[in-house]
Amino acid sequence: MDKPYVVGVDVGGQTTKMGIVDRRGTIVEQTVINSKYGPEEANIFIDALCASIRTLTKNIGLNKIQGIGIGAPNGNYYKGTIENAANLDWARGKVIPLVSTVSKNLNVPVTVTNDANAAAVGEMTYGTARGMKDFIMITLGTGVGSGIVINGNLVYGHDGFAGELGHTCAVRDNGRLCGCGKRGCLETYASAIGVARTAREWLDMSEEPSSLRELTNISSKDVFEAASNGDKLAIRIFEFTGKILGRAFADFVAFSAPEAIILFGGLARAGKFILKPIKDEMNANLLPIWKNKVAILPSGLKENDAAILGASALAW
Amino acid sequence: MDKPYVVGVDVGGQTTKMGIVDRRGTIVEQTVINSKYGPEEANIFIDALCASIRTLTKNIGLNKIQGIGIGAPNGNYYKGTIENAANLDWARGKVIPLVSTVSKNLNVPVTVTNDANAAAVGEMTYGTARGMKDFIMITLGTGVGSGIVINGNLVYGHDGFAGELGHTCAVRDNGRLCGCGKRGCLETYASAIGVARTAREWLDMSEEPSSLRELTNISSKDVFEAASNGDKLAIRIFEFTGKILGRAFADFVAFSAPEAIILFGGLARAGKFILKPIKDEMNANLLPIWKNKVAILPSGLKENDAAILGASALAW
Repeated sequence: MDKPYVVGVDVGGQTTKMGIVDRRGTIVEQTVINSKYGPEEANIFIDALCASIRTLTKNIGLNKIQGIGIGAPNGNYYKGTIENAANLDWARGKVIPLVSTVSKNLNVPVTVTNDANAAAVGEMTYGTARGMKDFIMITLGTGVGSGIVINGNLVYGHDGFAGELGHTCAVRDNGRLCGCGKRGCLETYASAIGVARTAREWLDMSEEPSSLRELTNISSKDVFEAASNGDKLAIRIFEFTGKILGRAFADFVAFSAPEAIILFGGLARAGKFILKPIKDEMNANLLPIWKNKVAILPSGLKENDAAILGASALAW
Repeated sequence: MDKPYVVGVDVGGQTTKMGIVDRRGTIVEQTVINSKYGPEEANIFIDALCASIRTLTKNIGLNKIQGIGIGAPNGNYYKGTIENAANLDWARGKVIPLVSTVSKNLNVPVTVTNDANAAAVGEMTYGTARGMKDFIMITLGTGVGSGIVINGNLVYGHDGFAGELGHTCAVRDNGRLCGCGKRGCLETYASAIGVARTAREWLDMSEEPSSLRELTNISSKDVFEAASNGDKLAIRIFEFTGKILGRAFADFVAFSAPEAIILFGGLARAGKFILKPIKDEMNANLLPIWKNKVAILPSGLKENDAAILGASALAW
């Protein structure tokens, strides 16, 4: 029987979004459920997820669904699990057998991977990376995630956890403490939280006038708005963030020689402030063979659809 | 017709070694020619190479040779070329069409890649990495090279030049100037030349007694011998070098989540001084999911045979 649809599921810390996607990458129906369940309530969440997929596919029919792709924090492609996901109460310090439970319940093939890997597959299937065989997806959100594609295949590594580029070292000595327990991780500088942290540090360290001083809580969005209004400190914060990213990217290129690095997520929207320093610093740190040859590109997926599309692309 | 042999060729700055290798990884015959030809003499070198392979295979017969694998500085697998190899006068600033020229001359399939990639394939075919699908080969010689294997395949990247981990940044600010023109490259600290450089720097910076002070020219071998004789400064030099390597390795693991990192070359022999700091520093910089899970292993190939074996393994 022809199965012209897949379901994409994006498990986030607050909510889980899911949608039915056709071969052209159109989301034909979508819905959202709560992700916030207690430490012992993984099964309740998974039951709710399955019930929601049944309802979502009621009109089209589950028998028209080729597969279900799930993007989830610490999703392990090999094992079909969510392992020790810090921002999901029901998966913290635990191994949750997501794939086996959902596929048994719905009798449809299920695949899981982490959010950034899902984004990379989505980009390759429906977005900027169509036709590319070697690229790196960097997601600049609350954290910094990555999905690495080499020779047309997502890199999972020996254990399924490859591509943690947000936790490579950006600042070697006295780097910022990261949520992972290490110091100096790229994520502590180049995530939305990292940008806000830079703002607070720099405001504390100088008397320089800045519209950011008037705010009690500073978010990366505030820094973006200040930069857009010409605030010099805010503009320099993005230059600094871009430099940190550009240096890191140069090392990533030395590893896998990608055709492009694709940026996704909130910070990627700060393009006009962050893109030039990224490119300049990356090129300054590349071997001559790669200078000005590796593209830095924005995601080709609409922000609101990207997580569902990415997860769904796993299922084709 | 059964073709039970391959030829492995290792093009080095001074000499080019080549050997006939059987399926079990035994070098049944070998020879060596001079690599030092002038800027306009690439063709003369290639003619000499082909003549030498004809002579080498005279008894066994060229028709018993399944293929020829060549490991060469800046060897490009996709294009079959040597491109701009700094330590070969006849290939500096040039693109040498090695594969097409040799395969036309001998009528045998020819493959080229860089030395470190060849070493990785050799390790996978005959050495420590047999059965491994995800590992990273690090060659610690005059320079620092790398060959990356992901899911059983060597990583070539978009352009064939992937795996330049010796030119990732080890020291971000005021790092040592590298032959490539960048600063702070891993190679400037962790190669044999890097170790000698550390020795000279440290001797200049302090008055600490050391047997190394008696020497006019210090090589990494001198540092090893001094360390073996209990010289404290020499021992600390290897600790420092091991730390630099261990930190870098932690970032490499975050990229491709390998089962093991395999060390090859002169410095790898300084195992007892360098291995513990490598392991300690790598584990201190790994995400919790990888701590104490990634092996650091010595090459399983005999140093003298490894280059020929590695190159030959490309040809199977």
